[in-house]
Amino acid sequence: MQPLTILKIGGNVLENSSLLTRTLERFAQQEGYKILVHGGGRKADQLCKQLGITPQMLNGRRITDAATLDVVTMVYAGLTNKNVVAQLQTLGCNAIGLSGADMNTIQAHKRIVKDVDYGFAGDIDGINTNAIQQLLAAGATPVFCAITHDGKGQLLNTNADTIASTLATHLAHLYSVSLQFCFEKDGVLLNPNDDTSVILAMTVEDYERYKTAGVISGGMLPKLDNAFQAISKGVKEVVIGSVESLYKNTATRLS
Amino acid sequence: MQPLTILKIGGNVLENSSLLTRTLERFAQQEGYKILVHGGGRKADQLCKQLGITPQMLNGRRITDAATLDVVTMVYAGLTNKNVVAQLQTLGCNAIGLSGADMNTIQAHKRIVKDVDYGFAGDIDGINTNAIQQLLAAGATPVFCAITHDGKGQLLNTNADTIASTLATHLAHLYSVSLQFCFEKDGVLLNPNDDTSVILAMTVEDYERYKTAGVISGGMLPKLDNAFQAISKGVKEVVIGSVESLYKNTATRLS
Repeated sequence: MQPLTILKIGGNVLENSSLLTRTLERFAQQEGYKILVHGGGRKADQLCKQLGITPQMLNGRRITDAATLDVVTMVYAGLTNKNVVAQLQTLGCNAIGLSGADMNTIQAHKRIVKDVDYGFAGDIDGINTNAIQQLLAAGATPVFCAITHDGKGQLLNTNADTIASTLATHLAHLYSVSLQFCFEKDGVLLNPNDDTSVILAMTVEDYERYKTAGVISGGMLPKLDNAFQAISKGVKEVVIGSVESLYKNTATRLS
Repeated sequence: MQPLTILKIGGNVLENSSLLTRTLERFAQQEGYKILVHGGGRKADQLCKQLGITPQMLNGRRITDAATLDVVTMVYAGLTNKNVVAQLQTLGCNAIGLSGADMNTIQAHKRIVKDVDYGFAGDIDGINTNAIQQLLAAGATPVFCAITHDGKGQLLNTNADTIASTLATHLAHLYSVSLQFCFEKDGVLLNPNDDTSVILAMTVEDYERYKTAGVISGGMLPKLDNAFQAISKGVKEVVIGSVESLYKNTATRLS
């Protein structure tokens, strides 16, 4: 199978223009098929504030009312996506910006209301792998923003980590997928106060041991649960680190 | 050559949700290859106003400063484009939203400053016909917003009529192109006060006679000059009318 790299970049990369440039340069140089997934960042919050919309968060997730959906659609699919695409084009990477509505690439449904109504938040139902294959075969590099649709005309705000890992698992039978999460640390740390204590390799057995020993906790747990789930579904590897550690092979590699 | 329909819809269509739905329904039913091009409309002006940016217009053209460019990128490439794409997907049309940066489809340069500095306004240099052919061959329907790029990382605000006619002329050697401008009137009128006085067919000779006789004047002239230029460059026909007249073949057909 052909290799496919899926790189997720978060808000901290998007908001730092020199870090973003370094990251896009590395990504553009990456050989083989590739897909970029980007989150949003503080720009959407800023715009909400300027427009008098109070961002509502719950458990780290945004509650997306209709006005906020318009803002995230403008910022993620418009401003951020098109600027990233234009920058990748200067680097010789034939980027094409996509929401899940484009070529129906990502179908989702509005999150079912249980205890909390998350508003226009989308949970993913399926990936149009055929469309993505066609774009990759045409030499294009898809750049996904965190907007999906329900196939009934409704756009939905969707977690970018989830988009990246769902793309990875759905494409794992077609490509040898390396799923890479680019964040501010060089990797998963043995000691959260020591940035040099990166765990270079981790199996699911290692992960269970680290969890039991309390070495890994907090916000890293859902990320790693998600990552090992992707591996159990056929993704070749998940790599977590900074742009530098990812490309120096000194990031955390899960397999 | 295979037929290709390029439909341009303007602000008045975008701002009227029932008219927009009717237009997209007709467009989705259109057989053969097709491309939609949409302008902006008042939403960008509204957002500028909310953000305290005063829209500056000169001779009907917007002066695009950096803050305005961000706004039009958000509205055109984000909010409008993705909502149109999501709506077309519900109608069985496999839409893919594009700016000129995506797959480098439309290259432009920042308008040269002569008497007036139009800011980040783009004049088109070229069309990546190969990328558009690939998308059409993949069964996708490109939906272009009025944003292009200069290949150096700069997005540019570009007139949607010009995008439509430039796409038409550059694709005319590959497809039998029908270029359609959808606006509020049923066509070019013999008598501007009589909406039923549509000129059904017009050659360039007819046009010269109408101009000399003063029958056609004002804002219609640049549109028609542009249209006849497209025909002289190999576009099979240009049709100007409302969504109803376009699909009832009662619009103005230039050839």
